[in-house]
Amino acid sequence: MLIDEDRMFPAETSARNVARALYAQVRDLPIVSPHGHTQAAWFATNSPFPDPATLFVQPDHYVFRMLYSQGVSMDDLEIGQPHIKEPRKVWHIFASHYYLFRGTPTRMWLDYAFQKLFGLTERLSEKTADLYYDTISAKLNTPEFLPRALYGRFNIEVLATTDSPLDPLTHHQAIRDSGWKARIIPAFRPDSVVDPDFPGFAGLIAKLGEQNGEDTAKWCGYLKALAKARGRFRALGCTSTDHGHPTAQTADLSASEAEALFAKVITGRADAGQKELFRAQMLTEMARMSVEDGLVMQIHPGSVRNHNRIIAERFGRDMGCDIPQATDYVHALRPLLDRFGNEKNLTLILFTLDETTYSRELAPLAGHYPCLRLGPPWWFHDSPEGMMRFREQATETTGFYNTVGFNDDTRAFLSIPARHDMARRIDCAFLGRLVAEHRLDEDEAFEVAHALTYGLVKKAYRL
Amino acid sequence: MLIDEDRMFPAETSARNVARALYAQVRDLPIVSPHGHTQAAWFATNSPFPDPATLFVQPDHYVFRMLYSQGVSMDDLEIGQPHIKEPRKVWHIFASHYYLFRGTPTRMWLDYAFQKLFGLTERLSEKTADLYYDTISAKLNTPEFLPRALYGRFNIEVLATTDSPLDPLTHHQAIRDSGWKARIIPAFRPDSVVDPDFPGFAGLIAKLGEQNGEDTAKWCGYLKALAKARGRFRALGCTSTDHGHPTAQTADLSASEAEALFAKVITGRADAGQKELFRAQMLTEMARMSVEDGLVMQIHPGSVRNHNRIIAERFGRDMGCDIPQATDYVHALRPLLDRFGNEKNLTLILFTLDETTYSRELAPLAGHYPCLRLGPPWWFHDSPEGMMRFREQATETTGFYNTVGFNDDTRAFLSIPARHDMARRIDCAFLGRLVAEHRLDEDEAFEVAHALTYGLVKKAYRL
Amino acid sequence: MLIDEDRMFPAETSARNVARALYAQVRDLPIVSPHGHTQAAWFATNSPFPDPATLFVQPDHYVFRMLYSQGVSMDDLEIGQPHIKEPRKVWHIFASHYYLFRGTPTRMWLDYAFQKLFGLTERLSEKTADLYYDTISAKLNTPEFLPRALYGRFNIEVLATTDSPLDPLTHHQAIRDSGWKARIIPAFRPDSVVDPDFPGFAGLIAKLGEQNGEDTAKWCGYLKALAKARGRFRALGCTSTDHGHPTAQTADLSASEAEALFAKVITGRADAGQKELFRAQMLTEMARMSVEDGLVMQIHPGSVRNHNRIIAERFGRDMGCDIPQATDYVHALRPLLDRFGNEKNLTLILFTLDETTYSRELAPLAGHYPCLRLGPPWWFHDSPEGMMRFREQATETTGFYNTVGFNDDTRAFLSIPARHDMARRIDCAFLGRLVAEHRLDEDEAFEVAHALTYGLVKKAYRL
Repeated sequence: MLIDEDRMFPAETSARNVARALYAQVRDLPIVSPHGHTQAAWFATNSPFPDPATLFVQPDHYVFRMLYSQGVSMDDLEIGQPHIKEPRKVWHIFASHYYLFRGTPTRMWLDYAFQKLFGLTERLSEKTADLYYDTISAKLNTPEFLPRALYGRFNIEVLATTDSPLDPLTHHQAIRDSGWKARIIPAFRPDSVVDPDFPGFAGLIAKLGEQNGEDTAKWCGYLKALAKARGRFRALGCTSTDHGHPTAQTADLSASEAEALFAKVITGRADAGQKELFRAQMLTEMARMSVEDGLVMQIHPGSVRNHNRIIAERFGRDMGCDIPQATDYVHALRPLLDRFGNEKNLTLILFTLDETTYSRELAPLAGHYPCLRLGPPWWFHDSPEGMMRFREQATETTGFYNTVGFNDDTRAFLSIPARHDMARRIDCAFLGRLVAEHRLDEDEAFEVAHALTYGLVKKAYRL
Repeated sequence: MLIDEDRMFPAETSARNVARALYAQVRDLPIVSPHGHTQAAWFATNSPFPDPATLFVQPDHYVFRMLYSQGVSMDDLEIGQPHIKEPRKVWHIFASHYYLFRGTPTRMWLDYAFQKLFGLTERLSEKTADLYYDTISAKLNTPEFLPRALYGRFNIEVLATTDSPLDPLTHHQAIRDSGWKARIIPAFRPDSVVDPDFPGFAGLIAKLGEQNGEDTAKWCGYLKALAKARGRFRALGCTSTDHGHPTAQTADLSASEAEALFAKVITGRADAGQKELFRAQMLTEMARMSVEDGLVMQIHPGSVRNHNRIIAERFGRDMGCDIPQATDYVHALRPLLDRFGNEKNLTLILFTLDETTYSRELAPLAGHYPCLRLGPPWWFHDSPEGMMRFREQATETTGFYNTVGFNDDTRAFLSIPARHDMARRIDCAFLGRLVAEHRLDEDEAFEVAHALTYGLVKKAYRL
Repeated sequence: MLIDEDRMFPAETSARNVARALYAQVRDLPIVSPHGHTQAAWFATNSPFPDPATLFVQPDHYVFRMLYSQGVSMDDLEIGQPHIKEPRKVWHIFASHYYLFRGTPTRMWLDYAFQKLFGLTERLSEKTADLYYDTISAKLNTPEFLPRALYGRFNIEVLATTDSPLDPLTHHQAIRDSGWKARIIPAFRPDSVVDPDFPGFAGLIAKLGEQNGEDTAKWCGYLKALAKARGRFRALGCTSTDHGHPTAQTADLSASEAEALFAKVITGRADAGQKELFRAQMLTEMARMSVEDGLVMQIHPGSVRNHNRIIAERFGRDMGCDIPQATDYVHALRPLLDRFGNEKNLTLILFTLDETTYSRELAPLAGHYPCLRLGPPWWFHDSPEGMMRFREQATETTGFYNTVGFNDDTRAFLSIPARHDMARRIDCAFLGRLVAEHRLDEDEAFEVAHALTYGLVKKAYRL
């Protein structure tokens, strides 16, 4: 077997027994996925996934960055190609390097999918590559493996995608129109129209104006257009926005300062500091709109995007070349919090790629400000050790109830159950240890486990 | 029962058994509390504590910051009021939100006091709120719950308060005059007269001059006044100073540079950088005086005070709105250490809110400089996980003997036994694991446990 | 007994059992030591080590920094003296303070050597000081304790020293000429001729020119001289370079910019920023040469050298006064990586003294760039807890196969077996927990343990 019933539970018997009992109560709760990168188109069209390489290798930068780090060529993996020409060959490369993933969460997510979805029980390797390829290929062509069938099988209650304000949301509309009873909702991610460093920024702003019938050459029209776009998202069930800036910097300029800054930015005359200030100001503007329209705000800061110049030039964005940087929150968030930190209608969920901030800044901030909540461990830290460090470092200051449950944040649809399962297991493992060390009573641990799995995410994301 | 005999010990049997045995030897050692924020007035007047809300909720920013983070109003809790008008109502709010503290040290400190002091054994909740209120209220009015009786019951050997140089220390004198045999001593905390950002700074400096018969309009008179104030504290048993600056920056200016800087600062013409430089210089001046008069120096840097503007404006200081920031020591302390780092008569105890410095800077510094010692985990890090991280991250470089035992650092008198008990348990848990992993012999662990509980604090603080 | 068969394994039974089984397979593998500070002269002359104090105290800054931190005088320890005059007296001081090392890796390394090499089984203390001194002294004068005999007894397959480009490598040549079958190789550490802050920099550059027949007053001749020196090292078996800069900063100047900067630096007219830029540029130049000649590159950044002014003035370098600082990699390495990050012939091994970078920067970088590998925990972090944190924080993002096995990095020859043994035990302990938690299969753990002990170091260092 690839996966064990007790995987990720503490080895120590008393903690493991509690973890098992807790997990038994939350294992089958529905999946609430409030933040991720699946494609609405999959569910609108409900077409079969083409082949194992296209499904598991090509979209997953966790997978191909590891292969690349060990000398495998991106070209041999056909990364960046619209269609993989030799999927079996790509699959063999992947299979023969599968040992590289030992000790990584990717390995555990994949093994879960291989066994639970495809019934595979022998480890993936060069030797079993064809068995895997053939087994998976065959199943992908059955009705049970169409996207909508999997959505049901995964017991998903809500699934949020992540979308540009310029996205027509056609596929979301199509899902609604189809009469299929599923809750797939967009999330409003305006980076491309609030970050002056985004390629083609001025043109995108113009497009935003056209789409919303506003003159986005002016600050006032620009803000109105954004508000209208938010309204369009809300009409399709959206409950949250998301912001992926290089830092968590916020600002609170006067209206006239903001207007002058916008004029600089939109005409391409802003320097690096002014661009950063504009992004900072826009976070506060977004918070202001959230106070008005109730959209929950998420900030995902601290990623230095496209770090590998050659890869970025040849392959573009999201190619496994984003590297975290040290990130400040205590000073960066202050302008926004000075303005809206005590607002009853604001929820601002903070994420980080800099684990040093858990105990130093994030837990103290969220343990005080009523608008703040802590998002789950993100990206490289969405892993057994990473999730455990988050609980160990944040809980004592911020408690459990200022956190918001789990985000799968994935582009890999088939990894969703595995990722939620991992989060549930690690939370139960942490709670199991607290109970075994007499730091929490077992009846309370059951309540907490349920909240971490289901209650807190529904409440925080207003779902 | 609210608390278990084995709480906080490792779940694993062999380590737990050692931890139990070690704890049995240190459990009943006297409490030495060299740094905290209790009030000498309590012991001078020996009046009963008024009611449960005034005792447990109002003074404890750990408690009300968590309630505030979840939407409870500061006004409903009557925070900042001189007297609570509806203490039972406040208590009910607290009780009905008690579940928020699951997994926090506050929960464990409170449960300890509830059970050990008040005999309560059913968990606090909305349901048991009145039972708690009535039980605690009744006991507070008995002689056994007067401050002096509790001091004895807690087996306290020394208790240090924290006081401004402008404090007349009337209550300390009154305790001495009363003939009561207890060792309650002041600690010299000059932030208000060395930090130009302190509200009313110039007036406080003038007052310092008046009190000490020195012309504090001049650098030379200012230093003399501070030295005299230190002498006054020492006469009442004081053995330490304490410094709560935003950073750990020190400086070593020439006498003429320092004089000129003081002139700027005292007349309100200093900019932010000059104010920081003045604080930095004053740490070195305080070290110089410590070399002379033997007062042990403590630095508690890295807190961004009053982070929530609205709360600070309405409620003032110490309202649960202080947030840590990243803190440098390796460069910041160099000017002071260049001057006094090898002085035999200097002890400088370092604290941090930035845990990343344990292994990177603090342990290497204290593992070399003879004047440096590491204070225990502070504030948000005074918790089971926080204390364990400190031992795990500092011990291998600095050993046990460059640390100084535990500080309770509390404003909540009734939490003192619980806090010391937690520290003893975690130290024994850490030592238990070292013994179980054959990294330390059991006979040595007994010696270390005793030193961590009693010997090191007495030696480091010269008590 | 001083050391236990199960030392450093998890106390929990199931993980311990796996760890034991894994360790049994790697315990006796040869030692490959690709980076350290032993002296080729020891093996060239093969003279006996003089006495216990000269062997264990004088060269080991881990030892005397701890003693100094607790008030022991450097003079009493005769640190910095060419020959210890009263070695027995020094030994007694050390022995009577041996309790200070409880909980430190130094204690475990020493106990290993005392028991395994000298047959001592009672703990070192003032009481046993003479027994230790006499036992060790007697053995040091036997043929079995001569450096070459110990080299064989330690089962060393390769041992690299660390050497200046100006070193004539006479002792390495003598070892080769002697016909002794051992692989002792130099490593190229050019700090003294690439760091303008190095004392006597200009003179050293001139000497570099003379030795290599190049005009090092010019940029072009300087680079040629360095390349020739690398060639001379390679001829004696060298496979790696090493760079110990204050930061990890790299630069990629144009040839003319670099030439102009060199002219400033060599004439002593460079300011601090220009010196830093020069070091940064030289890392990229070294990478360029490595692409050409195949030498593996190591960067050991982030140490603030000679932090204690008085000790540095009286005793010089490497006196236990080097303190780590926060270190950035994500921005610092970008110029070098932009140029050479995707080169097939480059291996760049990164070290850190700032553990916060493991999960935030180093694991993500090495998990993507094909040229990058992560060195083992370094210096203060070469310890049971430190090594465990490295595996816990790096593995999930970078896997095992982007790491390079263990470095002992020691000046203390007799500690080499103890240090490698500790690393093997901790790796097996980590793997044991992964297996016990069903995060890795046991057959895979055996493969990984072997790779971490032997395979990866051979491959990464091209040995």
